[in-house]
Amino acid sequence: MSTSSIDMNADLGESFGHYTIGDDDGLLDIVTSANVACGFHGGDPDVMAKTFALALKNGVSVGAHPGYPDLWGFGRRLIPFSAEETERLVAYQIGAAQAMARYAGHRITYVKTHGALGNFSEQDIDTANAVLNAIQKVDPSLGLVSGAFGALGELARARGMTVHSEIFADRAYTEEGLLVSRKEPGAVLHDAEMIAERVIRMIRKGAIETARGSYLPAKMDTICVHGDNAESVLVAKTVKNRLNEAGIVVRSFA
Amino acid sequence: MSTSSIDMNADLGESFGHYTIGDDDGLLDIVTSANVACGFHGGDPDVMAKTFALALKNGVSVGAHPGYPDLWGFGRRLIPFSAEETERLVAYQIGAAQAMARYAGHRITYVKTHGALGNFSEQDIDTANAVLNAIQKVDPSLGLVSGAFGALGELARARGMTVHSEIFADRAYTEEGLLVSRKEPGAVLHDAEMIAERVIRMIRKGAIETARGSYLPAKMDTICVHGDNAESVLVAKTVKNRLNEAGIVVRSFA
Amino acid sequence: MSTSSIDMNADLGESFGHYTIGDDDGLLDIVTSANVACGFHGGDPDVMAKTFALALKNGVSVGAHPGYPDLWGFGRRLIPFSAEETERLVAYQIGAAQAMARYAGHRITYVKTHGALGNFSEQDIDTANAVLNAIQKVDPSLGLVSGAFGALGELARARGMTVHSEIFADRAYTEEGLLVSRKEPGAVLHDAEMIAERVIRMIRKGAIETARGSYLPAKMDTICVHGDNAESVLVAKTVKNRLNEAGIVVRSFA
Amino acid sequence: MSTSSIDMNADLGESFGHYTIGDDDGLLDIVTSANVACGFHGGDPDVMAKTFALALKNGVSVGAHPGYPDLWGFGRRLIPFSAEETERLVAYQIGAAQAMARYAGHRITYVKTHGALGNFSEQDIDTANAVLNAIQKVDPSLGLVSGAFGALGELARARGMTVHSEIFADRAYTEEGLLVSRKEPGAVLHDAEMIAERVIRMIRKGAIETARGSYLPAKMDTICVHGDNAESVLVAKTVKNRLNEAGIVVRSFA
Repeated sequence: MSTSSIDMNADLGESFGHYTIGDDDGLLDIVTSANVACGFHGGDPDVMAKTFALALKNGVSVGAHPGYPDLWGFGRRLIPFSAEETERLVAYQIGAAQAMARYAGHRITYVKTHGALGNFSEQDIDTANAVLNAIQKVDPSLGLVSGAFGALGELARARGMTVHSEIFADRAYTEEGLLVSRKEPGAVLHDAEMIAERVIRMIRKGAIETARGSYLPAKMDTICVHGDNAESVLVAKTVKNRLNEAGIVVRSFA
Repeated sequence: MSTSSIDMNADLGESFGHYTIGDDDGLLDIVTSANVACGFHGGDPDVMAKTFALALKNGVSVGAHPGYPDLWGFGRRLIPFSAEETERLVAYQIGAAQAMARYAGHRITYVKTHGALGNFSEQDIDTANAVLNAIQKVDPSLGLVSGAFGALGELARARGMTVHSEIFADRAYTEEGLLVSRKEPGAVLHDAEMIAERVIRMIRKGAIETARGSYLPAKMDTICVHGDNAESVLVAKTVKNRLNEAGIVVRSFA
Repeated sequence: MSTSSIDMNADLGESFGHYTIGDDDGLLDIVTSANVACGFHGGDPDVMAKTFALALKNGVSVGAHPGYPDLWGFGRRLIPFSAEETERLVAYQIGAAQAMARYAGHRITYVKTHGALGNFSEQDIDTANAVLNAIQKVDPSLGLVSGAFGALGELARARGMTVHSEIFADRAYTEEGLLVSRKEPGAVLHDAEMIAERVIRMIRKGAIETARGSYLPAKMDTICVHGDNAESVLVAKTVKNRLNEAGIVVRSFA
Repeated sequence: MSTSSIDMNADLGESFGHYTIGDDDGLLDIVTSANVACGFHGGDPDVMAKTFALALKNGVSVGAHPGYPDLWGFGRRLIPFSAEETERLVAYQIGAAQAMARYAGHRITYVKTHGALGNFSEQDIDTANAVLNAIQKVDPSLGLVSGAFGALGELARARGMTVHSEIFADRAYTEEGLLVSRKEPGAVLHDAEMIAERVIRMIRKGAIETARGSYLPAKMDTICVHGDNAESVLVAKTVKNRLNEAGIVVRSFA
């Protein structure tokens, strides 16, 4: 059974100086892959060093999680960078993440785009190609974590890159397999047990479950759980426990 | 004769967005090593990409030029970071420079600290060790460019690292072989011909010439010429021409 | 004759730390109103203090020139702030400008929006109202400098605010009286004499001259000359001299 | 009895974008004066607007709380600005706070320096004078909140400025009446009841209680309670309740 094991990832290392977001210690006890912020939308060199070090200690795989340079907006504002500028700001952040991981004795193995850059690179072909160019120019051995139905994964597969398809544990899906906007009601699910049950249904069917109840067959290598709110650890723990009980092993794709 | 060849380096890539500092194109036609700002005291991903690309085209070696995170102060304010924080902010910038160089098809081979971080790491042992730790943890193959008489070079040699000793073409030296503070009169020399003559005297004697006229025997692998003022290109060109006329070949230490 | 006198304004104080843009000293000898950057897209407290002080000394009126918080992009990227966020970031900058002007013994009398915020507030009603709300909440005595045909001026007049209509000396106009985008060929005029002649034609006809040669009757209280490029001082001086020769007095609208 | 009423102040509005520090809503229910961060070490235009609006609604007096431009270090790193630069960065922040208060319908009546700027301006005469110059040049009607024994208050009184002397509820004092450094053990008190009892002892004796148990007679107009940690609201509420029970009215000095 191809679905007998799956990875769990979370966006971590998004604290900044004296400002803390999320319970990174709690989540690094649960997830198998950590997408680490690179100092543009969140994170700083100290936070990165600590996050990579704890991930290493806990046997958690790590990736770079680049975003727009917008600490104020937490990378959630779509800033109109050209494709060339996007390439470069992603390349810069990959390098910073590589260095901080190495500094901590760890090694990043993939890239996952954050926030507004994440959404836009799943929809806009030029931006998607910019992200992929950055990865391939800086380190062609790096994989990509991306949504099952967006532009990024499709273009990356066409380039022969390693692509890990992800499903979101707590985000509603449109009929096109994209995320329902956070501005819509019901975009984010909150009940831990319901989230866990939905994840297991999606894995068993090998299909994304849309908000309307359709199922879109999809490759799924990793489940994204959120790291930046109060219920994060509870949701992540519940999903992992239910997966274990259902006989689905949680382990890194790396 | 060990002094039949010498490298010339300059701090480049310090522009930021619409703000331009220095004539990088002019200097990349003259120098053999470029210390490229990493986005903390100057530089941005676009400027870095362009600087590395032009350096590659012109056959100029490149290094990372990390500084304090202080664009407003151009990295010239001494910000009291702990040794551990310094390690990490240097590591981060090395990674960013590595990635942007690779992005442009080039490869950095050394690190040189900038401004207040440069001065402090030549004087404070903890800060010097922090810089060296950062280099060795991120990429032990990287060399170091440092002053002939500061803490950095001495500690780096003790660690077995590759050290390129530099002399400043246009900066006055104290009797200890350190730079006269920019706040003192006469700290910076301006006449291109006098600068060139002093450089040749120093190379021929194998010794640093102090403001009082003493000579301190010193290893010298590279001459630093400034990149951020109006006379930069004229001074650099004059130094290079006079060196050539004196039979001293200007070529990269790399 | 209502056109026997006119104001000349320029965007000034856009330097940042060691980064210099424009010849502020030169332009403060020519213009009668200075739009001073407020530290978000350019400028810093030192630059602001110096700019207000020199404006005072030269008898130049001053206004706040708020922009998006984007030093890297010089305020020319359209960042999707909500109307409420826009209100607040404009209010903040007006306060900073008021304080720095007072600090220097001067007093701002108007607001003019910068770059992408400038363009968007001339086109988007919510953003225009956000700017006007910010002005009226912080200091209802402040005037507005805006384009003759945009949303800002129209809405401001409906609110009973003091509006100074401006024409751009060196920018081409569309048939709607808006600026031709900088990305289009011919968007920016460069020949000082041709610029001066066009300005005089526009003032004499009391109408904006479009790129296609139409004339759109318009109120015109001030001429904007650019401050951020090499030809700025020459263009400004030429325009002023030709206006004087044509019997049109250049004096502040304040 | 001069001590029959006293003010309580807290540093508030230090959140930034998606990053939250402190329970501002809880504290604005308790304190009578709010020192509002101005966007340099914490705070942003939205946070400022919300903080001033809630303070107004709750009848809480407000002041500007300027700090060094160091979001990463939360204003706790001593950055070597010259006295002139300090004057200007304080002036800028006062203006921003004035505007955001007015925007929210409120009005600041005092200035209190933050973090490293706070400590340094209590010790360094040039920096103290820089802060006072900034206040007097921007708005001479503004008061100052400062420690009973530092340079700031003394110099401000000599200038005839309105000075509100503050005691820290939860910080240990040296024999000189200065704060014990946060790096020393026992520098910060944590037990709410013990903090409240010490505050009442100090008010009754009209003297600061030092870590060694001495009492230094001091003017005391306001008690500073902390706003940035988990116990803040409990400590503040306990202090206020015990003061009320002791017959000491908590009300604004304004």
